[in-house]
Amino acid sequence: MCAQYCISYADVEKAHTNIQDYVHLTPVLTSSILNQVAGRNLFFKCELFQKTGSFKIRGALNAIRGLNAATLGGKPKAVVTHSSGNHGQALTYAAKLEGIPAYIVVPQTAPNCKKLAIQAYGASIIYSGQSDESREKVTKRIMEETEGILVHPNQEPAVIAGQGTIALEVLNQALKPSVKVYAAEPLNADDCYQSKLKGELTPNTYPPETVADGVKSSIGTNTWPIIRDLVDDVFTVTEDEIKYATQLVWERMKLLIETTAGVGVAAVLSHNFSNSFSRSKRMFCIVLSGGNAISSV
Amino acid sequence: MCAQYCISYADVEKAHTNIQDYVHLTPVLTSSILNQVAGRNLFFKCELFQKTGSFKIRGALNAIRGLNAATLGGKPKAVVTHSSGNHGQALTYAAKLEGIPAYIVVPQTAPNCKKLAIQAYGASIIYSGQSDESREKVTKRIMEETEGILVHPNQEPAVIAGQGTIALEVLNQALKPSVKVYAAEPLNADDCYQSKLKGELTPNTYPPETVADGVKSSIGTNTWPIIRDLVDDVFTVTEDEIKYATQLVWERMKLLIETTAGVGVAAVLSHNFSNSFSRSKRMFCIVLSGGNAISSV
Repeated sequence: MCAQYCISYADVEKAHTNIQDYVHLTPVLTSSILNQVAGRNLFFKCELFQKTGSFKIRGALNAIRGLNAATLGGKPKAVVTHSSGNHGQALTYAAKLEGIPAYIVVPQTAPNCKKLAIQAYGASIIYSGQSDESREKVTKRIMEETEGILVHPNQEPAVIAGQGTIALEVLNQALKPSVKVYAAEPLNADDCYQSKLKGELTPNTYPPETVADGVKSSIGTNTWPIIRDLVDDVFTVTEDEIKYATQLVWERMKLLIETTAGVGVAAVLSHNFSNSFSRSKRMFCIVLSGGNAISSV
Repeated sequence: MCAQYCISYADVEKAHTNIQDYVHLTPVLTSSILNQVAGRNLFFKCELFQKTGSFKIRGALNAIRGLNAATLGGKPKAVVTHSSGNHGQALTYAAKLEGIPAYIVVPQTAPNCKKLAIQAYGASIIYSGQSDESREKVTKRIMEETEGILVHPNQEPAVIAGQGTIALEVLNQALKPSVKVYAAEPLNADDCYQSKLKGELTPNTYPPETVADGVKSSIGTNTWPIIRDLVDDVFTVTEDEIKYATQLVWERMKLLIETTAGVGVAAVLSHNFSNSFSRSKRMFCIVLSGGNAISSV
């Protein structure tokens, strides 16, 4: 698979060695009530309890530690990224660990709690417009001004390998290796589904409207071949299904997941899913990606 | 200690044996951010992940299983209690396990989500007024009508012994046996603090106004001697401190605790607490009592 894709299984194993001392082995939880509602055995990989509140620290740390090695022993002058939140927080935290300044390009429309969290971790925030073009233009300018290196939130191979370490843990914690992989996404931001359907990378028509703000950006050229060949199927869910699933996890599991994490839960509760899988004794593991939710007492 | 108090240590050990196959061994979590904020090593006993969403299932189960034995092998015709929510849900669940109908007296002003949860578990709800007198009157009537047995939420010895099993687990999971016990309560419902100060049981002036609705009712004659002799100190916190602490756990630990669970967190973050304990390497464990919070996506 090394020739076809930007990373190999060995890269994921290497990433695991690279980061395992710096990330939490997050628990896999179960809920009898959620099992009842879904009519299935569900396992929830709780990446909302991960360092910086989401799985993104895995990729960010692996990238930063790799960069240090790649630049001939010298540290890069700065790292730069554009991110609606979780990757920004994660990269800032990882950069701080290695003593490197971080510059995070954030759309002005991003939720306030995400901006505050990035600042709390010590990064400089630079605002862009909402469009991909604006983000990229601002990011390029900051890279030039700071002599910084880009750590792309989802197309950087070291980031992709780092995120893949979730699977290694789940295999150890809950599942057998003969596992299938399903993707879930909002019907309103279904670039993954459309790409699989057409057999070619098909980005979202811009900008998608969804409560799952973490998956508004489209999949890219590095991730598309992996999704095309290794993801068994894609389930899309409506905004109401995402809200219902998120609320259910809040109320019944007491886990304050973000709405983007609710997308996977919504998928296993959906009619499409029921129609695809009989109520068998198979086990299903949902990755609860993060907990960047906005709530007040 | 058996002579002085309504239960002994042996009763707690017996309760542990009684219920351990029916309750979760809830995890003890830590949070580096909460440690930073508090300047201490904190451990959080996550009873919000307990069956029925709070520690109350421990006491309810122990009581119901004891009742079955006490009534000469025959099941009671019904169980009755008054509860603002968690105990009501717990008793209903425990009664269902044993095939006994449950009648729960709830003040009409209780949060809707609590009423719905009690109904979802299959109990009959009977409404009372907000005063202790109204609750007791309605409870007595229902007991007569159903020939039911009262399982008092906090004065029934079997319930007290059941709740005590939390301590056995914490001792195993996190702490050494040379442990001190501190209580926390809202300044606006400080019957425990006032009782300790005066050396005699001093109920709340009624009705207390606090966001921590789970601790509005006063301590009773069975629990007062235990608190008087075995609780080392009581810390009171303001409504703002409770709200801040609850929000902090939501945002930073991603745990959807109820505001009543925030009372203990608020206590360890308070100035009074800082003044009482130097920033030593001692470990502090807070019981996050439950997750009966109201939120919507």
